[in-house]
Amino acid sequence: MSRHCVVQKYGGSSVASAELISRVAKRIAATRRERDRVVVVVSAMGDSTDELLALAQKVNPAAPSREMDQLLATGETTTAPLMAMALERLGVRAISLTGLQAGIRTSSTHRSARIVDIVPQRIIDELEAGRVVVVAGFQGATEDLDITTLGRGGSDTTAVALAVELEAERCEIYTDVAGVYTADPRVEPRARPIPEIAYAEMLEFAAVGAKVMHPRAVEIGETYEMPIVVRSTFGDGPGTLICKHPAMEDRQKIRGIAHDSGVAKVILTRVPDRPGIAATVFGAIGAAGINVDIIVQNVSHDGLTDLSFTIAEEDLARARPVLDEVARKVGATEIVADTAIATVSVVGTAFLGTPGMFARIFRALSARQINVEQITTSQIHVTVVIARDRVAEAVQALHAEFELEQD
Amino acid sequence: MSRHCVVQKYGGSSVASAELISRVAKRIAATRRERDRVVVVVSAMGDSTDELLALAQKVNPAAPSREMDQLLATGETTTAPLMAMALERLGVRAISLTGLQAGIRTSSTHRSARIVDIVPQRIIDELEAGRVVVVAGFQGATEDLDITTLGRGGSDTTAVALAVELEAERCEIYTDVAGVYTADPRVEPRARPIPEIAYAEMLEFAAVGAKVMHPRAVEIGETYEMPIVVRSTFGDGPGTLICKHPAMEDRQKIRGIAHDSGVAKVILTRVPDRPGIAATVFGAIGAAGINVDIIVQNVSHDGLTDLSFTIAEEDLARARPVLDEVARKVGATEIVADTAIATVSVVGTAFLGTPGMFARIFRALSARQINVEQITTSQIHVTVVIARDRVAEAVQALHAEFELEQD
Repeated sequence: MSRHCVVQKYGGSSVASAELISRVAKRIAATRRERDRVVVVVSAMGDSTDELLALAQKVNPAAPSREMDQLLATGETTTAPLMAMALERLGVRAISLTGLQAGIRTSSTHRSARIVDIVPQRIIDELEAGRVVVVAGFQGATEDLDITTLGRGGSDTTAVALAVELEAERCEIYTDVAGVYTADPRVEPRARPIPEIAYAEMLEFAAVGAKVMHPRAVEIGETYEMPIVVRSTFGDGPGTLICKHPAMEDRQKIRGIAHDSGVAKVILTRVPDRPGIAATVFGAIGAAGINVDIIVQNVSHDGLTDLSFTIAEEDLARARPVLDEVARKVGATEIVADTAIATVSVVGTAFLGTPGMFARIFRALSARQINVEQITTSQIHVTVVIARDRVAEAVQALHAEFELEQD
Repeated sequence: MSRHCVVQKYGGSSVASAELISRVAKRIAATRRERDRVVVVVSAMGDSTDELLALAQKVNPAAPSREMDQLLATGETTTAPLMAMALERLGVRAISLTGLQAGIRTSSTHRSARIVDIVPQRIIDELEAGRVVVVAGFQGATEDLDITTLGRGGSDTTAVALAVELEAERCEIYTDVAGVYTADPRVEPRARPIPEIAYAEMLEFAAVGAKVMHPRAVEIGETYEMPIVVRSTFGDGPGTLICKHPAMEDRQKIRGIAHDSGVAKVILTRVPDRPGIAATVFGAIGAAGINVDIIVQNVSHDGLTDLSFTIAEEDLARARPVLDEVARKVGATEIVADTAIATVSVVGTAFLGTPGMFARIFRALSARQINVEQITTSQIHVTVVIARDRVAEAVQALHAEFELEQD
C-alpha cells in the first residue's frame, strides 16, 4: 500500500459512549483530509466487555472458550458500525468490517488466538473506493469461520498487524493518556510522556507493568519495524514514538519506572533440590496458561530448597489446584501465597555497560527503608519485589534518583 | 434430515436475562433427551435491540442501512453463545452459530433481506457430532460476507426456513403467550388459545394485527407445509398448531378477533377521478417502503373524489413528505391524517360461503353504537375501521357474538 496510509486504534475509554464515538469521528475525519488511506481499529465500548463476562459467568462459570469468543467479539463488533455511522454523518465515507470480514485469519486457540495471516483484499478494495475502513479489534476467525479473540491487548495487535500488512506509514494507538510516561502519573505527579522509545525498551516496560500497550503488539511492530505512536485521543500532544532507533540524544538513558501491584508471590517450601524439579513445577503452571514472572530459588540446605516465584494476582485462584497437585508431586512441604507485594521496575538501555546503575537503585530505596525482597534483571531493566504499601514511595524515589522529571 | 429433528425459536422476552436463558436451556435440554437433533434459534435479549437503535440514532439519525445491520445483528449474536454456554453447563453439548456461520445466505437488501439459500453443512456436521446447534436469529450474510438482517419477525423466519431446510418434524415458536389467541387477552379476558389454525387463516391474523407471528415466517411454513407450533416458553400448554389442514371439527369456523390500534387513516381530498391517479399515489408510497392497508375511494362528485387509506401510525412521519409530493402531483386539495382510529378484524374460513356473517358483525357493533367508518374483506377475514377508543368494546362484542370463549 502507500506511504499515505495510516492505521489508528482507539481504545475502550475513547469510544465509551455515543458522544465519545462522535468526537473520535471528528478526529478521524481530520486525519482523512490529510491522508489518502485511513484504517481505524476500535475496541469495545467502555466496560461492555466486563458486562459480557458477567453475563457469561452467570450462565456458566466454566464456559467453553469457543463460546466465550463468539460472545466477547460482539463488543468490538458493536463499536465498529457505530464509528462508521458517525463518520458518514460527517460526510466521510466509511465502512465497518468484523475481524472475519477484514480477512484476519487466526489460529484456533480461543481466548488468545494468534494472527496467522491477513487476507487484505476487502480492506484494500474499500480503501480504493475512498472509504475509511473501521475494523473491529481484538478478533479474527479461523479457516472454519469460527470467531476467535486475541487475548489481552488484542486490539493493539489488530492495529499493528494491519499497519504491517497494509505497509502503513505508521500505527497510531489512541488512548486516555498522553503517551508512555516515565512513571504512572497517578503515583508520581512529576512523570512526563517519553518522546521516543526503542521497541525493546517498550517491551520491557509493558512486561513489567506499564499498561499502556500490550507486548505482543510491540513485538509485531519490532519484527516489521512499524513505527507506533501512543498518544491521547482528545489531547494535542505528540505522544510517544516507539521505533527502532530513537533520536541520538534520547539513547542510553533510563526511560522510566514501571510498577505492578497486581502480583502475588508464591513459595513452595522445602522442595527437594533435584534436577528436573523446576521443570515439573513450571511446566505444570505453564500448561495451565499461567505466566510466571520472577523466579528465585534459595540456597539449598540439606538437599531442600524454597522455590519462589511471582504470578498475576488474578491468576492465583486458578493456580491453586495446579499448585496443590505440583506440590504433592515434587514433595514440597507447604505452599505460601503472599499478595502484599508489588514489583517496581527501572527500564532503559542505560543498563547496557553501566555498572553503577544497580547501586543507585538500592541506595535510593534503602535511603527510604524500603526492603527489596527479590530482584531480577535483564540488559534493559531491573525489577525489585517490595511491600505493596511502599510502591508509591519507591516509584517516586527512583523517578527522582534518575532525574526523570527533567526533559 | 430426519423426523427426529426439531427447530425451536425463543423470542426476546424468553431470553431477556441470564436467569431466563438458564431456564430456557433446561427446556431445551429436556427436548434433547427426546430428540436426536435439536436446532435452537434465539432473538436478541429483551430490549437490547432498542438500545442498539438508540445508540445508532445518537451517532447518526440517518445511518447507512448496511452499518445498521452490522450493528443490530450483534443483539442475536450475543444471545446465541450465552445459550450454548447455559446448555453446556447442563451437560448438553452445544455450539452457537451466527447467521453467516449457519450458512444463511440472503439478498443484499439491508434491514429487510430475504433468505435466498441455506448452506446447511456446518449445522448438519454439528448435529451429527451430537451437539445442539444454537443459531442467532434475524440475520444472514450476503455472498460478500456482509451482514444482513431479515426485518420484522426475522427470527421466526430464520427458524421456519431452517426447519424446512433440515426437513425437521416441526418448528416450535416459543413466546410469552400460550399460543395464538381468539383475541388479545389483555382486551378480552375470555380469549383462549386456538388449538389448530390453517396457514391462510394465520396469515390473515398476522396481517391484521395479531403480533404473535410474522406473516413472512408463516408464508414459508405454508409454501413447504412445515407444521409450526406457537406456545409458551415457561408454560405447559399445547399451544397453537399452524398447519395445512386443521382437524375436521376445527374447520369452517371463526378463529378469532384481531385488532390494531397502531394505524392511521390518511385522506387525500378532492382528487380528480381519473384513471392512473391511484397508481401514482400508491406507487409513490410503495416506493418509499410504506405499506398501505385499507383503501377506500368515495363515490365521485363533479369528477372529484376523496381517496382514503390506512398505514401504520409509525410510518406517518416518514410518509408526510411523500404524500405532500403526491398530493401536488395529482392535484389533491388537502391531506388529512387521522390517528384516532383502529382496525378490528374477524378471521376465519367461515366466511367462505356463509353470507350471514357480515350481518352478524354489523349487528354486534351497532348494538353498542360503534360506528364502522370503513370496511374491507377477503375470503377469510372482515376488517372494520372504528374509533380507537371503542376498540376493546368492539373486540369483546365480536368475541361474544361468535362464541369464541367456548372450546
